[in-house]
Amino acid sequence: MSASLHAIIPAGGAGTRLWPLSREGHPKFLLDPAGTGMSLLQETVVRLQPIAESITVVTGRKHYEAVREQLAHVRGKQPVPTEIVVEPSPRNSMAAIGLAAYIIRDRHGDRAVVGSFAADHAVKNAGEFRAAVTTAVSGAKRGYLTTVGIAPTEPSTAFGYIAAGTPPLAKDLYPVDAFVEKPDPDTARSYIERGYLWNAGIFVVEASVLASHLKAYLPQMDAELSHLADSYLTAGGQVPQSERVPKEPWNRLQSIAIDYALAEPLAAAGNVAVARAHPDLGWSDVGDFHTFSALGSGTGAEDLLVVDADETILLRSKDAPAGKVVAVLGADDLIVVDSQDALLITTRAHSQRVGEVVASLRGAGRGDLL
Amino acid sequence: MSASLHAIIPAGGAGTRLWPLSREGHPKFLLDPAGTGMSLLQETVVRLQPIAESITVVTGRKHYEAVREQLAHVRGKQPVPTEIVVEPSPRNSMAAIGLAAYIIRDRHGDRAVVGSFAADHAVKNAGEFRAAVTTAVSGAKRGYLTTVGIAPTEPSTAFGYIAAGTPPLAKDLYPVDAFVEKPDPDTARSYIERGYLWNAGIFVVEASVLASHLKAYLPQMDAELSHLADSYLTAGGQVPQSERVPKEPWNRLQSIAIDYALAEPLAAAGNVAVARAHPDLGWSDVGDFHTFSALGSGTGAEDLLVVDADETILLRSKDAPAGKVVAVLGADDLIVVDSQDALLITTRAHSQRVGEVVASLRGAGRGDLL
Repeated sequence: MSASLHAIIPAGGAGTRLWPLSREGHPKFLLDPAGTGMSLLQETVVRLQPIAESITVVTGRKHYEAVREQLAHVRGKQPVPTEIVVEPSPRNSMAAIGLAAYIIRDRHGDRAVVGSFAADHAVKNAGEFRAAVTTAVSGAKRGYLTTVGIAPTEPSTAFGYIAAGTPPLAKDLYPVDAFVEKPDPDTARSYIERGYLWNAGIFVVEASVLASHLKAYLPQMDAELSHLADSYLTAGGQVPQSERVPKEPWNRLQSIAIDYALAEPLAAAGNVAVARAHPDLGWSDVGDFHTFSALGSGTGAEDLLVVDADETILLRSKDAPAGKVVAVLGADDLIVVDSQDALLITTRAHSQRVGEVVASLRGAGRGDLL
Repeated sequence: MSASLHAIIPAGGAGTRLWPLSREGHPKFLLDPAGTGMSLLQETVVRLQPIAESITVVTGRKHYEAVREQLAHVRGKQPVPTEIVVEPSPRNSMAAIGLAAYIIRDRHGDRAVVGSFAADHAVKNAGEFRAAVTTAVSGAKRGYLTTVGIAPTEPSTAFGYIAAGTPPLAKDLYPVDAFVEKPDPDTARSYIERGYLWNAGIFVVEASVLASHLKAYLPQMDAELSHLADSYLTAGGQVPQSERVPKEPWNRLQSIAIDYALAEPLAAAGNVAVARAHPDLGWSDVGDFHTFSALGSGTGAEDLLVVDADETILLRSKDAPAGKVVAVLGADDLIVVDSQDALLITTRAHSQRVGEVVASLRGAGRGDLL
């Protein structure tokens, strides 16, 4: 069921809403919320291997060694050529995806289909995931920038939505009228009623189509990425992998998300399609401790003792004190996250706001904890 | 201002409502809630030294070494002969206070005034405390079993109350009409309106008066305590201090609190007086984490980070991980108590119920944490 896809996985961003499990030095994509023994990054790679011709992980210098270690221990059945492109500095998703796409274009030609996938999302039904991506590849081959739309399970305010148009372009493939920002609760309910889909940040497109759009909308970035891809490919074995992307002009690239750089303007121009994923996909952005714990590792913690309190969740980092009992008395709906040097106590209702704790710690000069 | 008082301090009871700071092996009287560097037991001894001819601490074998160590490091200015009587097993307060009182009677005569004081209460104004006890000694010399009444600062449901009668027997000394049990909130408010006082469990009485009442109400205990006091005093230097109270008949003594054995029936018979303490006494039974933290050590914890949450209290045992940050987000009114092997999360409103956590742990076979 090869979809002739070249997968790009940007692996950056600490994931401050999962602090203290996630840290700047131990980002969200290294966590294992389902307790499977594989990190979110490893799960992402394994999920893509059956339909990918190649996999390119784009990460920062700080995480290069950890990513390399992780990829060396992926237990997938179908090994796929996998490469790590190391950014000299974070320049947002358009630069990361664009550079990888231009490298793939140089190697595999204009018609190569590239697809970008978050390194830190979870999917229960990998088969349906690959089916949706395969549909997206077919959309890419028709010339569209194609995203994957997730069937909402609730009127979430945590995601952007996709307004799909009619008629369908093919089975499960629709034109996109617009991408809309994270809504307030009332707006979210109206989006659900109108059949909008969650935007999982997946973009699948032919390399040459991406390049031509980039040339039209951000000509300077197109030129600089072309130059960077050339430099990368000619650097060869003389230069360590972690230093093959030259700091110049990388560090001068415009810092912009692919959503704003291309997806939104192209949707307005009628050049975007969406592949509707199966409702049983079981996708999660693992965006806060509520969704994190729903994946399994937070339930049934044997060291949790709850007296007269409802719905307590205990989560622990691997370096947390082993066997330490956490007792909760008469405090409902708590989320308790323990690690060696930091303990977080919050509630389900506030779990989206954990980034504020990280900001406060930064303001208090406690960068050692971030 | 010697009151010719022989102070008795029963030091037993783990104080389960202060778990995990208090443990069976590290009871409440060894805690230092005000952060003064002295335990509640040491503070009690120092508070009594200026008015005591002798001090007798009655404790269990398990705590003998800790108590001995503590008494050796009391920093009082006026050293007073201090002795530790070791119970072979816990037999409640009537046995503990009675044995010490009978030993004191044998040594110092029938007119010796004994007074019993909890080892684990806190008093801010020690001068007013000694003034009240001195008034109680004067009541004892008039033949009364005399208690100290605390002016309530709120309609607490955590204490028994004392109904004082009129006219006064002397300045600040009143007859006691009755002792009443811990009330519900409405009853507590009515007690406050009627001028009832808090019962701090202090009893001051002449040794011979205590003995004659005990002989009348509990003749077998009177006989056994007389025998035990004799055995204790004749054991001399041949027997280690921790084994001077013979297991027989100690282990057969009736297990009853002095309140039920003597105070309540004697009040009904008109033989009890109360010394009213000054309203600024600043007494606390340190009965839960709310009152514990009010003594000072729980405030301003430098490792506590609170975001959008009101009234968080963080308390730590000395063996808790040093420097570990506790971050609270959007969860109001929490009390967080951290130790090396256990973490408790509760609220002010539930802090009286922490004993239920200890009971649950015992039921779950986690005696190692108690």
